[in-house]
Amino acid sequence: MPASLDALLAHIDATLDASRARLFDWLRIPSVSAQPAHAPDCRRAAEWLRGELAALGFRAEVRPTAGHPCVVAHHDGPGRADVPHLLYYGHYDVQPPEPLELWTTPPFEPALVDGPHGPRIRARGAVDDKGQVMTWLEALRAHHALAGTIPVRATILVEGEEEVGSPNLDPFLERHRDELRADVAVISDTGMWDIATPAITTRLRGLVYVQIDLRGPARDLHSGLYGGSALNPLNLLARLLGELKDEDGRIRLPGFYDGVAELSPEQRREWEALGFDEAAFLGKVGLSVPAGERGRAPLERLWARPTADVNGLWGGYTGPGAKTVIPAEAHAKLSFRLVPGQDPQRVLAGLRAFLDARLPADAKAEIRVLGASPGIEVPAESRWVRAASAALAEEFGRPAVRIGSGGSIPVVESLRRILGLDSLLMGFGLDDDQVHSPNEKFELACLRRGIRSHARLLAALGAGAA
Amino acid sequence: MPASLDALLAHIDATLDASRARLFDWLRIPSVSAQPAHAPDCRRAAEWLRGELAALGFRAEVRPTAGHPCVVAHHDGPGRADVPHLLYYGHYDVQPPEPLELWTTPPFEPALVDGPHGPRIRARGAVDDKGQVMTWLEALRAHHALAGTIPVRATILVEGEEEVGSPNLDPFLERHRDELRADVAVISDTGMWDIATPAITTRLRGLVYVQIDLRGPARDLHSGLYGGSALNPLNLLARLLGELKDEDGRIRLPGFYDGVAELSPEQRREWEALGFDEAAFLGKVGLSVPAGERGRAPLERLWARPTADVNGLWGGYTGPGAKTVIPAEAHAKLSFRLVPGQDPQRVLAGLRAFLDARLPADAKAEIRVLGASPGIEVPAESRWVRAASAALAEEFGRPAVRIGSGGSIPVVESLRRILGLDSLLMGFGLDDDQVHSPNEKFELACLRRGIRSHARLLAALGAGAA
Repeated sequence: MPASLDALLAHIDATLDASRARLFDWLRIPSVSAQPAHAPDCRRAAEWLRGELAALGFRAEVRPTAGHPCVVAHHDGPGRADVPHLLYYGHYDVQPPEPLELWTTPPFEPALVDGPHGPRIRARGAVDDKGQVMTWLEALRAHHALAGTIPVRATILVEGEEEVGSPNLDPFLERHRDELRADVAVISDTGMWDIATPAITTRLRGLVYVQIDLRGPARDLHSGLYGGSALNPLNLLARLLGELKDEDGRIRLPGFYDGVAELSPEQRREWEALGFDEAAFLGKVGLSVPAGERGRAPLERLWARPTADVNGLWGGYTGPGAKTVIPAEAHAKLSFRLVPGQDPQRVLAGLRAFLDARLPADAKAEIRVLGASPGIEVPAESRWVRAASAALAEEFGRPAVRIGSGGSIPVVESLRRILGLDSLLMGFGLDDDQVHSPNEKFELACLRRGIRSHARLLAALGAGAA
Repeated sequence: MPASLDALLAHIDATLDASRARLFDWLRIPSVSAQPAHAPDCRRAAEWLRGELAALGFRAEVRPTAGHPCVVAHHDGPGRADVPHLLYYGHYDVQPPEPLELWTTPPFEPALVDGPHGPRIRARGAVDDKGQVMTWLEALRAHHALAGTIPVRATILVEGEEEVGSPNLDPFLERHRDELRADVAVISDTGMWDIATPAITTRLRGLVYVQIDLRGPARDLHSGLYGGSALNPLNLLARLLGELKDEDGRIRLPGFYDGVAELSPEQRREWEALGFDEAAFLGKVGLSVPAGERGRAPLERLWARPTADVNGLWGGYTGPGAKTVIPAEAHAKLSFRLVPGQDPQRVLAGLRAFLDARLPADAKAEIRVLGASPGIEVPAESRWVRAASAALAEEFGRPAVRIGSGGSIPVVESLRRILGLDSLLMGFGLDDDQVHSPNEKFELACLRRGIRSHARLLAALGAGAA
């Protein structure tokens, strides 16, 4: 018999400190997927979660992949055929904590510290994604505590390689396609609009990420002996990347804007109503002038327009002092954020054509594809979005807004492509959570309301209310 | 009484093996100025030279600097007031020998090995510059052996930090300005046109070398959250460097070409007559198309036109895989080879103006100057050049060609600026001597003809023939 909502919420509040303590336990495990020395910690973080799920009656396993393992768990729910089947996705791995000297407290010694919104949890992974995983895990725990079961069928998939691009996730999804079937995927790895305004993310930009390796002379040359005659790959790389955008910030790859739709007037109005303060957004990071495409609204630039950003550059001499070298090679990491409608393969073909049109005879450019996922638009009117909107509105006392995200969550595309699942993106992060940076934090208030929101959603879905 | 030229040359040939053996002794001292562990070896190399000079009747001393010491020596010559006063400059320090595994014989165990031009001396420093210093030292020794004195007044200045940019040379020249006065500086640290064709280098390009530190956002940003709105210093750096040159390869800094003179028709003809094979020059390093300024002759591009080369680039994420960062900073090492007539300070001002005209409001560019020396043209018609040309022509049986050098020899500028001295650049290196690389060598034939050429020049200057 399902628990009453009031009892559920009271239980969550009464046991919040235990929830926080469990999160701290998990945060103490430095599950840095990018650093091979932390592979045993990744496994420990997975085992920890498996134990928590088993305690809630899940059939839970740590499953190997070619990299860090996945946690997979199943719960049949109340045993009724009419309850929905949710797939909860998350990740237990975290970004490297470096540079360590910029942390106020050690990254893997979670601390509860005061902030303008009350206590906050500071640790690597506090919000991305361990703390957010805990929002639904503790909601499931509350239901289990009061009703002895959970109100829906649930499958759990928590991977350990999200921060390194999920290289083994797609094969894992392919291999376990039947086992992982569900009605919808629920993911808490996104943000709220602000501390008081819940949000459901319905648009995600995709990502094409490449490394360009440019080669010129057969060996490094002395710039005195060869300068003026020999091709310099560094000069050439600068020219190629410098020409990526025109004076209006539009990207020059042939065919790049094919399929990019203009915002609907409705969507434009909805985003305008959010009152996004671009000056404050940029001001917080020391900037004053938007640098993107001209003639676009602030949120449109971030959520609904594609980009081209150089993410890394290297070549030649980079040590102290002077070395007069014309190097044989130059390298760049380059990425394009894509919006729904753009085809990643077409963008890659456009990049190839752009480079080929500009490469002199003696230069070779190799493009290594490190990621290629399309932008995604989640159906904003589904039963899942309606139920989640209602749960959030009840919890926060104001409507949830439908927002976009400038970033990518490649798993959303994988879940759709491989499992045929739409994702419900209901997250509780804030803009200032310092994701991927020193002093990452998660507001305790967000943890609490996240748990309560998920508990409400579970109750509603279990009651067949949605 | 001066020795007869025939006796002198015969003596040089008869004692060539002893000259070579002395050079071997010097080469065995690993005087690597860049490596602190070799500081005692640098001192030993200086002491060795001091001893050799003292044996020729020089008042010779090893003088301290803030770094490795200088050897300074004086000889009053035959005691007549009408002989010229030469300042011989050289350096006893050598480049690091690494990578050691690429040497056929150990770098500090000099070997005499067969080559297409007869025996060659293989060792670090064989040609740069110990072997070349020996060309004039053994010429002085031959005169001393046959006449009991040398035919000119001579001052010797051999430093130990040329391979690390001579950081203490200018202060040393300032401090000993009076003591180092002479009529002309004689330097053997350059090359011949080819094994059969002697050369005097009369043009050297200068060098402005800077590091550009570009700053944008106050911290590294996530390209998903900020891409499309935030200034990306890597994109900006690429654009700035990409715009350095126009479509014809001309450099766009304001005022950059001020003072750059067109080649005289005579100089152009002389260089054309050298029959420089640009296709072979580029082909050796895997290139086929000259990449410099359009509409210029091959040697003109290398010797008489300024350049802009990016020597290093770095910023953002440069490790394996993908990181979606918009970094706070981007950096470049950038250098300009200058030709005579260009003012390094004006070039720096032009760079500042070029950047300022293109920097958006939120970007800051710091220019750190790591070197600023002008291009130099040695008067090609001086009595010194005439005398050296005659000596070389007699020794080689064909005229010496006047060549340029694409690289810089900063001491030439220092000697002119601080001591008011022109330099006579008469060198005996060859293009394939592997300077700064493994298996550095010096042809024994070049050592012999170098000694004989210097002996001829000394004889002529002592006789007042020039």
